[in-house]
Amino acid sequence: MENNILYAQSGGPTAVINSSAYGVFKRALKCDAIDNCYAGCNGIEGILKGDFVKIDGIDKVSLLLQTPGAAFGSCRHNLKDFNEDESEYLKIVDIFKRFNIRYFLYNGGNDSMETVLKLSQYFKKINFPCSVLGIPKTIDNDLMETDHTPGYGSASKFIANTVAEIVYDAKSYFKGRVNIIEIMGRDTGWLTLSSALASKVGYGPDLIYVPEFEFDIENFRKRVNEIYSEKKHCFVAVSEGIKDKDGNFVSALSSTDSFGHSQLGGVSQFLASYLTNCGYKTRGIELSLPQRAAAHFISETDSEEAVKCGSEAVDFLLEGETGKMVSIERKSVDKYSVKFSLADITKVGGKIKYVSEEFYDKEKCFVTDKYFSYASPLIEGECKIKYRDGIVDFFSLENLEK
Amino acid sequence: MENNILYAQSGGPTAVINSSAYGVFKRALKCDAIDNCYAGCNGIEGILKGDFVKIDGIDKVSLLLQTPGAAFGSCRHNLKDFNEDESEYLKIVDIFKRFNIRYFLYNGGNDSMETVLKLSQYFKKINFPCSVLGIPKTIDNDLMETDHTPGYGSASKFIANTVAEIVYDAKSYFKGRVNIIEIMGRDTGWLTLSSALASKVGYGPDLIYVPEFEFDIENFRKRVNEIYSEKKHCFVAVSEGIKDKDGNFVSALSSTDSFGHSQLGGVSQFLASYLTNCGYKTRGIELSLPQRAAAHFISETDSEEAVKCGSEAVDFLLEGETGKMVSIERKSVDKYSVKFSLADITKVGGKIKYVSEEFYDKEKCFVTDKYFSYASPLIEGECKIKYRDGIVDFFSLENLEK
Repeated sequence: MENNILYAQSGGPTAVINSSAYGVFKRALKCDAIDNCYAGCNGIEGILKGDFVKIDGIDKVSLLLQTPGAAFGSCRHNLKDFNEDESEYLKIVDIFKRFNIRYFLYNGGNDSMETVLKLSQYFKKINFPCSVLGIPKTIDNDLMETDHTPGYGSASKFIANTVAEIVYDAKSYFKGRVNIIEIMGRDTGWLTLSSALASKVGYGPDLIYVPEFEFDIENFRKRVNEIYSEKKHCFVAVSEGIKDKDGNFVSALSSTDSFGHSQLGGVSQFLASYLTNCGYKTRGIELSLPQRAAAHFISETDSEEAVKCGSEAVDFLLEGETGKMVSIERKSVDKYSVKFSLADITKVGGKIKYVSEEFYDKEKCFVTDKYFSYASPLIEGECKIKYRDGIVDFFSLENLEK
Repeated sequence: MENNILYAQSGGPTAVINSSAYGVFKRALKCDAIDNCYAGCNGIEGILKGDFVKIDGIDKVSLLLQTPGAAFGSCRHNLKDFNEDESEYLKIVDIFKRFNIRYFLYNGGNDSMETVLKLSQYFKKINFPCSVLGIPKTIDNDLMETDHTPGYGSASKFIANTVAEIVYDAKSYFKGRVNIIEIMGRDTGWLTLSSALASKVGYGPDLIYVPEFEFDIENFRKRVNEIYSEKKHCFVAVSEGIKDKDGNFVSALSSTDSFGHSQLGGVSQFLASYLTNCGYKTRGIELSLPQRAAAHFISETDSEEAVKCGSEAVDFLLEGETGKMVSIERKSVDKYSVKFSLADITKVGGKIKYVSEEFYDKEKCFVTDKYFSYASPLIEGECKIKYRDGIVDFFSLENLEK
């Protein structure tokens, strides 16, 4: 009987989630204890249909290292409690038996880790011989029990560099504007903090606002006025999810279009409009999807760690581990180095790691020195990217046989 | 008496305007006929104040090749007709005499070329021995008398790659959204056309709309519906300046905020809201300032041509040319190669090169094959970028003596 491994992806992608896939395949293909290596398409949704592709050579998948999105498709499907509804679990067991899946790796965020936990518990309960581990990923960096998440470093590198470029460009004019740069993060401000790394080359934001700390629009206007009066420029980095004192999203204070419909514009447009009406020249800039999709600009450190999360996960499976999440531990702060271990998913699932005052100075509306020490190593290094006719070359699922 | 050269920048920056500055300095510093090389700060505005920096070594300015914005500052100041008001011309002559400026290069767009023409005419009229040439730049590619403009290739490379990354990312989900990607271009659609280059790797937009061709919102909805029904995804690239049949900006149909103030949101937000209200899941993405500021991602072809526009301009000056603009001529279509010549500014100033049906198929709402032949070579090649702590290292004016 064969011992096969299955890998699948779930949730919102990062620029390096496919690097973790590469790490899994690279290790698994070399491994005597593993006969065949499969990727499941569209996460648990595709797995329920047996929608698998076979990975039979590492060269065919090397472009995964520079491919954004979820190359094998993603989903947002959560399994129900098996005590209430066993039907999907029975289907999965059926399919796993058919493909001789003994090892399953699920690459995702918070929700995906709950799937890992539930599946591993179910398999134990029915004595089904399949080990299940989770590989973390999220640009949001809001997972507990890991120093940081794969994906955060690359998103941070993109944000820090893009902010530096925007600030440098805007300073071309003697008299400038108030620039409001909107960064992803509905619940947590980790990504917005990374804009501060641009100050290392002298072109960072003046003010940073994150969802964890109350946003007061009057105080905001006062701070902007102080900075603009002095510098004739002002750069504000703001999380999409900042909230007022009552916990309402500031972006929800927004607007209606000419048909009276509620408008989609985010917090940057809202704050830019607000300041325009206060008499400032403004520009709202939403960094949007490229924050997680800029595969041409990933951090080498992040990419290598994402690969390692995948390859170490295979080793942990072979050691008999199940129902846990691979996590990154920082070994030393002075000279950055990490090791990979396993975290208890009950401490991860359904929980959120928030930005605290350790990393954010709410008086200055800026990061602390400690944040610089924490985040700087994560954006270090650039990857060599392969281009085709001037465009980043992507992995295509069509090159693999079903 | 010294023979000195002065270089200055004007108008909106591009990712390679500073590469042209580098080209000027590199050639001028090696040139026996030129004693000193200056850069004027903040364009003609700074020149009027004698705000110059001396360039005395090419190594000190090598980071210009990877610096966005206008490294020497920009302005939007136009000189009046000297027959009506001579005062600023007299000031300039005074300052040029003081610094022994015999050669002046002005790097900018349409308006800057008019400044070049006026100054050269004035100098001729009063017999002042200073030659003046213009170096073109604009991401918009809308200058007459040049095959394309320095800056367009890099902006196109950024747009094509970013669109490819966005499309790949969005396709991670089986059932997607209608994504409206807003691209710079108030009057012309050249930049928006470049999104089509993403189709070369299989991840381009489905529909493209440009300001030169009437935008009909009902027809747009019909086309979106056809594509979405078939593919469960739809990607639309749209110029910020698209207009309806009456010539009104579609973005101006937009919206008011909760205070009844007019909202700044652009055309992507407007169209996304419109389609949301038609029942689609949508996302509006404005590529914004990074289109012209992504110095980490410039096209090697564009960068090299920008440098060459600068160095050739110096040679043209030394040959006694004045009152003209450096232009790029395509020598061959089959195997891309260019040469640099001089264009008559009276055919450039105040004119706009629009996208025609040669490059845009208004029935398909997509580019023609001819556009691919035209634009593909312009985004070829990647530059080796120097990083400091994971952030692109920029040129700083503070390293030069005033």
